[in-house]
Amino acid sequence: MDQFPVGNGELLVGGILLTRLAARVGRTPFYAYDRQLLARRVGELRAALPRSVKLHYAMKANPMPALVAHMAGLVDGIDVASAGELKVALDAGADPHEISFAGPGKQDAELTQAVAAGILVNVESFREIAPLAAASQALGLPARVAVRVNPDFELKSSGMKMGGGPKQFGVDAEQVPELLAQIGRAGLAFEGFHLFAGSQNLRADAIVEAQRKCFDLALRLAESAPAPVRFLNLGGGFGIPYFPGEQRLDLAPIGDNLASLAEEAAQQLPQAGIVIELGRYLVGEAGLYVCRIIDKKISRGHTYLVTDGGLHHHLSASGNFGQVIRKNYPAAIGNRMNGTPSGVCSVVGPLCTPLDLLADRMPLADAEPGDLVVIFQSGAYGATASPQAFLGHGAATEVLV
Amino acid sequence: MDQFPVGNGELLVGGILLTRLAARVGRTPFYAYDRQLLARRVGELRAALPRSVKLHYAMKANPMPALVAHMAGLVDGIDVASAGELKVALDAGADPHEISFAGPGKQDAELTQAVAAGILVNVESFREIAPLAAASQALGLPARVAVRVNPDFELKSSGMKMGGGPKQFGVDAEQVPELLAQIGRAGLAFEGFHLFAGSQNLRADAIVEAQRKCFDLALRLAESAPAPVRFLNLGGGFGIPYFPGEQRLDLAPIGDNLASLAEEAAQQLPQAGIVIELGRYLVGEAGLYVCRIIDKKISRGHTYLVTDGGLHHHLSASGNFGQVIRKNYPAAIGNRMNGTPSGVCSVVGPLCTPLDLLADRMPLADAEPGDLVVIFQSGAYGATASPQAFLGHGAATEVLV
Repeated sequence: MDQFPVGNGELLVGGILLTRLAARVGRTPFYAYDRQLLARRVGELRAALPRSVKLHYAMKANPMPALVAHMAGLVDGIDVASAGELKVALDAGADPHEISFAGPGKQDAELTQAVAAGILVNVESFREIAPLAAASQALGLPARVAVRVNPDFELKSSGMKMGGGPKQFGVDAEQVPELLAQIGRAGLAFEGFHLFAGSQNLRADAIVEAQRKCFDLALRLAESAPAPVRFLNLGGGFGIPYFPGEQRLDLAPIGDNLASLAEEAAQQLPQAGIVIELGRYLVGEAGLYVCRIIDKKISRGHTYLVTDGGLHHHLSASGNFGQVIRKNYPAAIGNRMNGTPSGVCSVVGPLCTPLDLLADRMPLADAEPGDLVVIFQSGAYGATASPQAFLGHGAATEVLV
Repeated sequence: MDQFPVGNGELLVGGILLTRLAARVGRTPFYAYDRQLLARRVGELRAALPRSVKLHYAMKANPMPALVAHMAGLVDGIDVASAGELKVALDAGADPHEISFAGPGKQDAELTQAVAAGILVNVESFREIAPLAAASQALGLPARVAVRVNPDFELKSSGMKMGGGPKQFGVDAEQVPELLAQIGRAGLAFEGFHLFAGSQNLRADAIVEAQRKCFDLALRLAESAPAPVRFLNLGGGFGIPYFPGEQRLDLAPIGDNLASLAEEAAQQLPQAGIVIELGRYLVGEAGLYVCRIIDKKISRGHTYLVTDGGLHHHLSASGNFGQVIRKNYPAAIGNRMNGTPSGVCSVVGPLCTPLDLLADRMPLADAEPGDLVVIFQSGAYGATASPQAFLGHGAATEVLV
C-alpha cells in the first residue's frame, strides 16, 4: 500500500502526520479519507476512459456527507440506494438530474420522494410502475425512469455476482420488453438502462467482456423502448486489491473497450451517454481506519495488541462481511512505518468475542500502548457497513482530510 | 419454534396479535421482545438450578434499555462490556454491587467510571491494576475486582471458543498467581474469579465438564488469592437452537452438577457465591424480527419476497456474523401461520447486495405484499449486532411487549 506517503517515520494523510491528525481529531478510533487521493483516482479514470463516458459515484460505498459533497464536485452523478442516501446527496449539492436511485425494495414513499426530487429511478420491478405513475400525477412532474436489467449472463471472477440466473435485482432481461411496454403505457419518462453484473473484480478482461455483453443486451432491449435511450449505465465492478498477491486493476483495456462502445453508441443510440457507476473503486483506497493500542498482552507465547477499535467499526476488516475465508486487510503501525517486526502479532479489539480480530498473526513493527494501528483500504464499506452500536463502545469518528 | 402461541392464524406476541402489534408500533421493521417469555426462561433456570446459584444477565446480548430494566428485576446481576453498557444498566436500576464489567480492552476512563460506580471489574490484564489503584485512591473508594482467567482448557462443541490456548480474554491461568499477588500489593478489593470457556453450546455434558474444570481451577487459584473468594463466575455458554436438528439444551444435568459444585464450594470456599452468566440463553428465544413484504418478484422461476427489512437490521440472520456456512434462521409468515406453502421462496431485503438474504429457498406459507415475515430466535445479537446505518434505510424499532 503506497498511496499514503511516509514522512518522519509516520504515514501522511492529506499531508498531515498521522499522530498530529489523531491529536486534531481528538479521539480514536477514526476513519480518515484523503481528498487528494479521491481526486487523483477520479483523474486516473478520466485519463484512462473516453471523455464521453460519465462517472457516477455509488455513495453506498461511503455516505459520509462531507465526502459525498467532495465527490459530487469530481464526478458526473451520484447513485443512491435509499431515500436516506438521497437526502445526503441533495444536501451535498449533487445535481438532481444526475442522481439515480437503484434498489430491489423501494418503498412507495421513496418513489414519491424520487419523483419530487426530479431524480432518475432505476425501475427494478413491475410493481414500481403504478406508484411512480401516481406520484407523477399527484406532483405534476415527470417520473424519470431507467430499467435495471438482470442480465442473462454474469460478470466472471467477481467478488459478488449480481446478474445471471434468478436474482432479486432488476428485471430479467427476457421480461424487459413487457416492462418497457408498461412504462410507455403508464406515461413514465423513459431514459435508458442500468445493467450491473457484479462487483469487486480485478480482471480487466472479465469487465471488458461484461461491458460488451451489457452493451449488446441494451442495444437489443432498446428496440422495445418507448423513447430514445439517453442513459446507458453499464455498471461498475472495478475492484481494488485487499490481499497479498492481488494486483491493481489495469484500466487500459477497459478504456479501449469503452472507446469502441462509445463509437458504436454514437451510431446506434445517438442520444445515449454511457455511464460507469463506481463505489468502492473511487473511495476504497483513499481511506484508513486508525485505532490506538491500549494494551499489549502476551498469552501463551502469542502477542496481542489490544486496541480501542475493532469489528464494531470495521466489520469487513474482521472478516465477517461476506468473506468465506478470513484474510488480513493490509495493516501497519502508522506511527512506526520505519520499524521492523521482531515477530508476528495479532491485533484485536475491545469486544468480548473472538470475532473481534483486525489482524491475525501479522508481522507488524514492534509497537506499544499508545501507538496507532492503521488498516488500509478502508474508504469503502467501513463505518456504515459495521455494527457500530455493538457492546456500547460508541461510533468511530470520520474525517475528510 | 413453539414459544409464541398462534391465535386467529397469527402469532401472538405478549398476547397481542402480530398485525395489531405492527399497527401499534406504527412502522416496520421492528424487533419485538416478549416480557412473559423472558420471565418464563428465568423461571425455568431457577427451577433447574440450585437456589444458591446466582443468575447474571450479560447485556451485550440485548442492551435495549427497557429490556435491561425488565431483566434487572428478574436476575441477580448484570454483566456489562463497556462504560456505555454500564450507563444503561445503572439507568435501568440495576444494583451496582451486582454489576460486573468484563472486556479485553478496558480504557482507563472506563476503569475509573467502574470504580466510581462501585461495580466489580473482571481484571483481564496486568495493565489494569495501576489505573484501578489510581482511580481507587483518587476517589477514596475500593476498586472491587475479580480475575478473569483464560483457562488451560476449552469448552468443547462451542459456537465460539473463548478459552484454552493463547487468547486476548482474561489472564492465562498459569499467570494468575502473580496477578493475584500484584492485586494484593496494589490494595485492590479482591472478590473472586470469572472463568468463561465458550458460548452457544447445546451439549449439557460439555457444559458440565467445563463448569467442573472451571471450579477446580478456581479452587487451585484461590490458594494464591489475597482475600477469600466471594464471587465465582463459572461463565455461561448455554446455547439455543437455531437450525434444523438442533435440540434445546437439557438443564437437568447442569443443575445436578451445579448442586454438587455448590456443596463443595460451601466446604472449600465458604464465602463464595456461584454465578452463572447468560446472555443469549436468557433473551434469544423471546425475540422476533418482523418485516413487511413490499414486493413479490419471480425471477427465472424463483420467487423472491422482497421486504423492508434485512441484513442491516439482522446481520446474524443473513448469515454474515461469524457463521462459516449460511443456514436459515427459523422464519414464518407471521400473519398466515395456518397457511401452507405451495413451494419454496427466498426472503430478501432492500439492499443492493446478494448478502441481504433473510431466508434462502424456504417453504413458507404463500404470501403477498403487506404480509409480515417473522424471523424467530432474534432476541439476542440482533439490532446492535447489525450495521444499521448501511445504505441509509434507518434503524429498526425495538419494542418490549
